[in-house]
Amino acid sequence: MAGPELHPDVVPLGFLIGSWMGEGKGEYPTIESFAYGEEVRFWHVGKPFLAYTQRTWALDDGRPLHSESGYWRMGGPGRVELVLAHPTGVAEVEDGTLDGTSLSLATSSVVRTPTAKLVERLERDIRVEGDVLTYELRMSAVGQPLISHLTGELQRGAS
Amino acid sequence: MAGPELHPDVVPLGFLIGSWMGEGKGEYPTIESFAYGEEVRFWHVGKPFLAYTQRTWALDDGRPLHSESGYWRMGGPGRVELVLAHPTGVAEVEDGTLDGTSLSLATSSVVRTPTAKLVERLERDIRVEGDVLTYELRMSAVGQPLISHLTGELQRGAS
Repeated sequence: MAGPELHPDVVPLGFLIGSWMGEGKGEYPTIESFAYGEEVRFWHVGKPFLAYTQRTWALDDGRPLHSESGYWRMGGPGRVELVLAHPTGVAEVEDGTLDGTSLSLATSSVVRTPTAKLVERLERDIRVEGDVLTYELRMSAVGQPLISHLTGELQRGAS
Repeated sequence: MAGPELHPDVVPLGFLIGSWMGEGKGEYPTIESFAYGEEVRFWHVGKPFLAYTQRTWALDDGRPLHSESGYWRMGGPGRVELVLAHPTGVAEVEDGTLDGTSLSLATSSVVRTPTAKLVERLERDIRVEGDVLTYELRMSAVGQPLISHLTGELQRGAS
């Protein structure tokens, strides 16, 4: 069954659509470095956004680590917006640039529940070349400056 | 295959877990009233939150209407937190109370992308009795005061 056509507003983001699987590495001054498996999904329903979920798990025993979910929008030509919920009690808006199949975003505003972890700012660079997606995420949290936190490489799966 | 056990922190929210389907009605001073179908899913991965997605569609032609996704957490005894992303470009934190199987939450903070719709505040009451979930959502947006926007009734599906 054919789904709806991609909304014209998000055609520039169409290269993201699909399921992506791979691995990444995490580091931060307050924790031990770790390796993880990751699944990312982008999809659409014919409206002017892409829906997005991400989850990671420990490579040693498969226990779930981070996850996040939200929506990607275009904010005008070459401008991208991301609205994101984190299970740590953080909701944020990121915006940035789209250049071909490279994205570069940073937190523009962040809100937290009373019990949330103190995340100040995220920056993420994403690049897609063919069926390979690579990214780096930088984070300022719990009193630390903005430094590299996660890097990963994912392969596009069967859609 | 047995999944992980529900994290002790979110046992008080366990009554929400499952897939819920039903219908609702929407009204707002700036739009025509409308009826919609709705699916809501709550699930867990063994960590101290419930993951949550919701989507609605028009009853006449099935076209997608609203959706939202995020995470539910406990904020202490009888306190509930909701972290939510909306595809309209809005991210928000809600908090409120849990009394048995009744929830009452309101926006505590909200952030928006540059192109987002102007939503000021949401309030939601949710009540579960057995396999029936009813809710009312009140909204202050686009210059309107806080007034009833959505009411719905959902039935718990096969999990």
